[in-house]
Amino acid sequence: MTALTIRYKATRERTEEICRPLETEDYVVQPVADVSPPKWHLGHTAWFFETFLLKPHLPGYREFNADYNFLFNSYYETVGARVIRTDRGNLSRPGVKEIYRYRRHVDEAMLRLLSAPLNETVAGLTVLGLNHEEQHQELLYTDIKYILGHNPLFPRYAETALAGQEVPEENGWLNIPEGIYEIGYDGDGFCFDNEMNRHKVYLQPCKINTALVTNGSYMEFMEDGGYKDFRFWHSDGWDWVKKNQIQAPLYWHRIGDRWHHYTLGGLTPADPEKPLCHISYYEAAAYASWKGMRLPTEAEWEAAADRFSWGRRWEWTESAYLPYPGFKKAAGAIGEYNGKFMVNQMVLRGASCATSPGHSRITYRNFFQAYSRWQFTGIRLAQ
Amino acid sequence: MTALTIRYKATRERTEEICRPLETEDYVVQPVADVSPPKWHLGHTAWFFETFLLKPHLPGYREFNADYNFLFNSYYETVGARVIRTDRGNLSRPGVKEIYRYRRHVDEAMLRLLSAPLNETVAGLTVLGLNHEEQHQELLYTDIKYILGHNPLFPRYAETALAGQEVPEENGWLNIPEGIYEIGYDGDGFCFDNEMNRHKVYLQPCKINTALVTNGSYMEFMEDGGYKDFRFWHSDGWDWVKKNQIQAPLYWHRIGDRWHHYTLGGLTPADPEKPLCHISYYEAAAYASWKGMRLPTEAEWEAAADRFSWGRRWEWTESAYLPYPGFKKAAGAIGEYNGKFMVNQMVLRGASCATSPGHSRITYRNFFQAYSRWQFTGIRLAQ
Amino acid sequence: MTALTIRYKATRERTEEICRPLETEDYVVQPVADVSPPKWHLGHTAWFFETFLLKPHLPGYREFNADYNFLFNSYYETVGARVIRTDRGNLSRPGVKEIYRYRRHVDEAMLRLLSAPLNETVAGLTVLGLNHEEQHQELLYTDIKYILGHNPLFPRYAETALAGQEVPEENGWLNIPEGIYEIGYDGDGFCFDNEMNRHKVYLQPCKINTALVTNGSYMEFMEDGGYKDFRFWHSDGWDWVKKNQIQAPLYWHRIGDRWHHYTLGGLTPADPEKPLCHISYYEAAAYASWKGMRLPTEAEWEAAADRFSWGRRWEWTESAYLPYPGFKKAAGAIGEYNGKFMVNQMVLRGASCATSPGHSRITYRNFFQAYSRWQFTGIRLAQ
Amino acid sequence: MTALTIRYKATRERTEEICRPLETEDYVVQPVADVSPPKWHLGHTAWFFETFLLKPHLPGYREFNADYNFLFNSYYETVGARVIRTDRGNLSRPGVKEIYRYRRHVDEAMLRLLSAPLNETVAGLTVLGLNHEEQHQELLYTDIKYILGHNPLFPRYAETALAGQEVPEENGWLNIPEGIYEIGYDGDGFCFDNEMNRHKVYLQPCKINTALVTNGSYMEFMEDGGYKDFRFWHSDGWDWVKKNQIQAPLYWHRIGDRWHHYTLGGLTPADPEKPLCHISYYEAAAYASWKGMRLPTEAEWEAAADRFSWGRRWEWTESAYLPYPGFKKAAGAIGEYNGKFMVNQMVLRGASCATSPGHSRITYRNFFQAYSRWQFTGIRLAQ
Repeated sequence: MTALTIRYKATRERTEEICRPLETEDYVVQPVADVSPPKWHLGHTAWFFETFLLKPHLPGYREFNADYNFLFNSYYETVGARVIRTDRGNLSRPGVKEIYRYRRHVDEAMLRLLSAPLNETVAGLTVLGLNHEEQHQELLYTDIKYILGHNPLFPRYAETALAGQEVPEENGWLNIPEGIYEIGYDGDGFCFDNEMNRHKVYLQPCKINTALVTNGSYMEFMEDGGYKDFRFWHSDGWDWVKKNQIQAPLYWHRIGDRWHHYTLGGLTPADPEKPLCHISYYEAAAYASWKGMRLPTEAEWEAAADRFSWGRRWEWTESAYLPYPGFKKAAGAIGEYNGKFMVNQMVLRGASCATSPGHSRITYRNFFQAYSRWQFTGIRLAQ
Repeated sequence: MTALTIRYKATRERTEEICRPLETEDYVVQPVADVSPPKWHLGHTAWFFETFLLKPHLPGYREFNADYNFLFNSYYETVGARVIRTDRGNLSRPGVKEIYRYRRHVDEAMLRLLSAPLNETVAGLTVLGLNHEEQHQELLYTDIKYILGHNPLFPRYAETALAGQEVPEENGWLNIPEGIYEIGYDGDGFCFDNEMNRHKVYLQPCKINTALVTNGSYMEFMEDGGYKDFRFWHSDGWDWVKKNQIQAPLYWHRIGDRWHHYTLGGLTPADPEKPLCHISYYEAAAYASWKGMRLPTEAEWEAAADRFSWGRRWEWTESAYLPYPGFKKAAGAIGEYNGKFMVNQMVLRGASCATSPGHSRITYRNFFQAYSRWQFTGIRLAQ
Repeated sequence: MTALTIRYKATRERTEEICRPLETEDYVVQPVADVSPPKWHLGHTAWFFETFLLKPHLPGYREFNADYNFLFNSYYETVGARVIRTDRGNLSRPGVKEIYRYRRHVDEAMLRLLSAPLNETVAGLTVLGLNHEEQHQELLYTDIKYILGHNPLFPRYAETALAGQEVPEENGWLNIPEGIYEIGYDGDGFCFDNEMNRHKVYLQPCKINTALVTNGSYMEFMEDGGYKDFRFWHSDGWDWVKKNQIQAPLYWHRIGDRWHHYTLGGLTPADPEKPLCHISYYEAAAYASWKGMRLPTEAEWEAAADRFSWGRRWEWTESAYLPYPGFKKAAGAIGEYNGKFMVNQMVLRGASCATSPGHSRITYRNFFQAYSRWQFTGIRLAQ
Repeated sequence: MTALTIRYKATRERTEEICRPLETEDYVVQPVADVSPPKWHLGHTAWFFETFLLKPHLPGYREFNADYNFLFNSYYETVGARVIRTDRGNLSRPGVKEIYRYRRHVDEAMLRLLSAPLNETVAGLTVLGLNHEEQHQELLYTDIKYILGHNPLFPRYAETALAGQEVPEENGWLNIPEGIYEIGYDGDGFCFDNEMNRHKVYLQPCKINTALVTNGSYMEFMEDGGYKDFRFWHSDGWDWVKKNQIQAPLYWHRIGDRWHHYTLGGLTPADPEKPLCHISYYEAAAYASWKGMRLPTEAEWEAAADRFSWGRRWEWTESAYLPYPGFKKAAGAIGEYNGKFMVNQMVLRGASCATSPGHSRITYRNFFQAYSRWQFTGIRLAQ
């Protein structure tokens, strides 16, 4: 069995492992547009291999169900019509068992494909498909958390919360001297198109903190009236706070005189020593403004990231998601992967406790709308 | 076992019988606000007995789960906070098995309650609860049809469609002579508060048809441009047509040169001889206007209903849903049953193929908003 | 000069008289969809005569401006495309002077038409046009009040408020004996199509009050928590209260410890002795429910109206707006006048302080959506 | 008279000059939220001087009307409550004449203030107020164009369209060599806070065109199906096209077989030789993508802008609006000027035919949401 086959099996298995604690009903619901039903993630990641690998590259491949192209397409407009994103939670069929059958069908065919001598296209697309599946593994965690954490019964996903064992970090300031730096990927391994080309940037002198902002520090912001003082907020952020009556990070509940938050292990008091989680860019920027500081740019972050530990929270940066110099999208549907989102979103750097092991790297660029907060997001300060 | 106990068991069993063909996933979804997840209906009808019978009238009754008062309350504001109606489909928990356990728990306690000598309040509330459950049996059929019929896979609910064996009716006109008539309930059995008091009305001479309008007749309306000519429509109806781009009854699909419709037995050609189904009041009134006729009022319908067969479609009338002379609502939460809906809705008379046997009667008043069409609604003409 | 010519001139002059206190800017704005800019009313009433009288019946008539058919059409879909209702306030042109020129142009042509021997069609349509203009005179008052009363400067329209000289009424109960009554118009004069046919109705015994509900009585309802107790409200009404955070009648403002209301004479304390004004059907019904009473039906009102004084407030009834037996709409665009609104609206009876003298009568049926309250609406109790 | 006094008078006079061709009604309307009524611009620019100059710095200054702080505040949350932006067009009072009286009142007081010896704060704030007024001069042009250009009568603002005399540009490519460049303002004159600090950036080699894209070139994109092919569009842009059914630039109308566009001189055929105008960032980016090119970044633009002519269109760049290194907002309400908008907007560079003479400069940063197109926006290509 080749290394790629081994990796294929391990990655696919991990996806299903994440779903194991779920009840059938949990696979179905979509409480908000951004949160897809777990069974959709299971189907969509199988569809990706069927569409981009099996149909074009495995002779004699028999499509599992022609309707699935319609049901499990996400945003690949090239490939055909798709179910409107907000309708995913309205579909009870195909059922969970049927979708697992679909995965089996795809896996068997993929193993057949991978057991033959591979050309570069197939190998490359398979690696892309596995990275794509890893992204959906992270989304599975965040979407499951949203589904269970917005149920009034607050059911527990598993005994141990993902973020349970986190140890405090040393708070300190790293200097980034003025000068020319190189950012972007130029190694031999896999990277997404948005990480290229590696290129020079000129940075002004600045400082970046070695630690993430903690729940306790954020509570001080809240107690100081941070959510009630427009001066700390962007204009859009202030509108967002007022319209949605935001008063705390996502999943936080005031019970008696103490802040609790829903975790995958259940509802629990928020530990002031632990890193803050589930805040929007608006909140991250407002907190930094309240501190008289700012968020790092993505170039600053990348220039310093080998000098601090990262990987527990996706970290909001002050950078909008834009193409690097020389960015080219791939031809065809694969080209829709990243480039089309390069407007109205902010960059996050690092990785989170929900990120699949080995998925991220120092040049990795994640991105979300400024109001998003269902990912495991956090804050690192700069000045 | 008393007659009431026997009826209790039969009614409760019938509810679960209706759900038997469902897969677990089908119990969960809520594609639009008006359509509740089947598991919500199962829980809500149990909650009704727990709240209005067991808690106040069975000494030592142990509540199944205090949170369920919040989850399965519908519109009974007296009883406490409730989950926003549009959020029902976002709740994966409690799961289907757990809700069946809830029903078992309630059933055992109810049988205990019913086995003791009954006072009139308990007997009366039990009968109300069973009539309430029968109403939800009908909603189960209509909501299941909506859930499966809006799935792009068009899954079949059961081999035989509810409305499958319908035989054609003889088209004819009954005369209703001018004069004083009595309408409303005054028998000894159960009726809803909105059917009382029985009272005199004065009717002008009119004619009412013995047959329901058929699919074939409605196709003529469609072919004559009925959906494109504002002259046949109420102003609100015309806005509804344009905003929602309505072009046919609910569940109708044009495939090739033929109209099909989704039935509980699957997608099938619409039979021109069968009675029309799933049209809104707006469509019913527009069709009648196109024919140069009108819909009957509810008093006309009731005055003539013993002279034609009814019970296959709920029939739209030209009457708004308003209180009868002398109408009084009951005290407390039970008083919220009907009176609070007496504005902005139209009356339907008769019963449908989805109505529980014995549930309706000639004085029965059903009511929905003028745009509703997921019930098994139909048209009977008057002039 | 014929009687019709004299009446034409007087009616048209009265419209402009109502607008005399306005500044040019007041003619332009449309703060909500239901409130049209005064200059639109001026243009629309001229357009009515141009479209239904001059173009078809005055040989050689020269249209003032072909675009005006588009701009000043209201809901007459037969006549052609029209500016979307919510866009009326976005149009600065044609300006006020230009619209008065349009009225001059139409008036001259109408006087020419009326000076020739008249056939019945022309006479009938002219009378309809004048009644139509009188309806817009009332709307001018209500729309001007809305425009000025929602300006934070609360500018005064005129020294004397319309409703200034109202004297208190004697509170008493009139008995309406059970039996057959006739309602609807059958005189020789003008009536709208919705007042016909005159027909028999059977009424149960009831009582109707001789006086309108006063501000003071309504304040008791408010002080008793009437806006906070769902038990008094229709389900739709309670949703309306919560969604719009309704806490008092329209135009009411709490200043210090006293209720004020905006009148056409400016902001002034609400006099407890004066009849209540500017409440929705929902509020009227909730108030009646709080009193343990109800609103009269329109038949009850008409049966008793010659025994109490009316004409200061449009009075909400418990009747939905529906066709009378034998109702027929006229052919063509004129047929769109009333019938198309016969769903989702409630009937008001009487007339208000803003109604043009001689415009209303005992059989007159006004109608609005249950949430509307910018008309001079009031409450008369029945039981 | 000092230079500042002369400039104050000239700038204030120019604002009123722009409004001279308007009819009173044109001052009042607000067809969409982004377009303010001209009388609001007149009042708001006076309010700026009254609030930030006269009240704090002119002893004995008598406020014109205390309510105006509420009415003419825009987004300065520090200063107090303000009329909701979308409500500006609902206010007929204060009238146009009254607002001109307000301006006279402010101007007299300002001239008194400016005739005394000036400290730096007063001089600085006055210059800021004049630059602020110039920004509203440009908005007056764009908002007047929107108001008249969305009126079905297409009234002309003035004989000569703003953009009438534009001569064709030579199409050519300028090379920008790789290396370090400095961008941002460091001169002695006035600049906005968002232009500072001047700082080094590293640019990759690129080319920028000397000419703006013309109507003719854009017509080719349209004829090639540019609005129908998602591959050229950002995901948000494609949603915007579909939701709003965008098929051409703003103000463009297909009449017969020829594209016309509304200009301030009236409706006229679109000249293929003239520079394109009134496109959103989404359209600009889609056009560039269709050409296989891209938009320049703001740093590239600034590095090359002394080598091509600019000033006829605000030019969309590929840069999101973000703070420069070392950006600091001023204390107090003045600090709300620019920084709070630094999210979810794109940068435009240059100036347009509607920009006040001398207002812009090579370091000037304008910014709008990616969907905005009522400004005189255009496209310059890079690669």
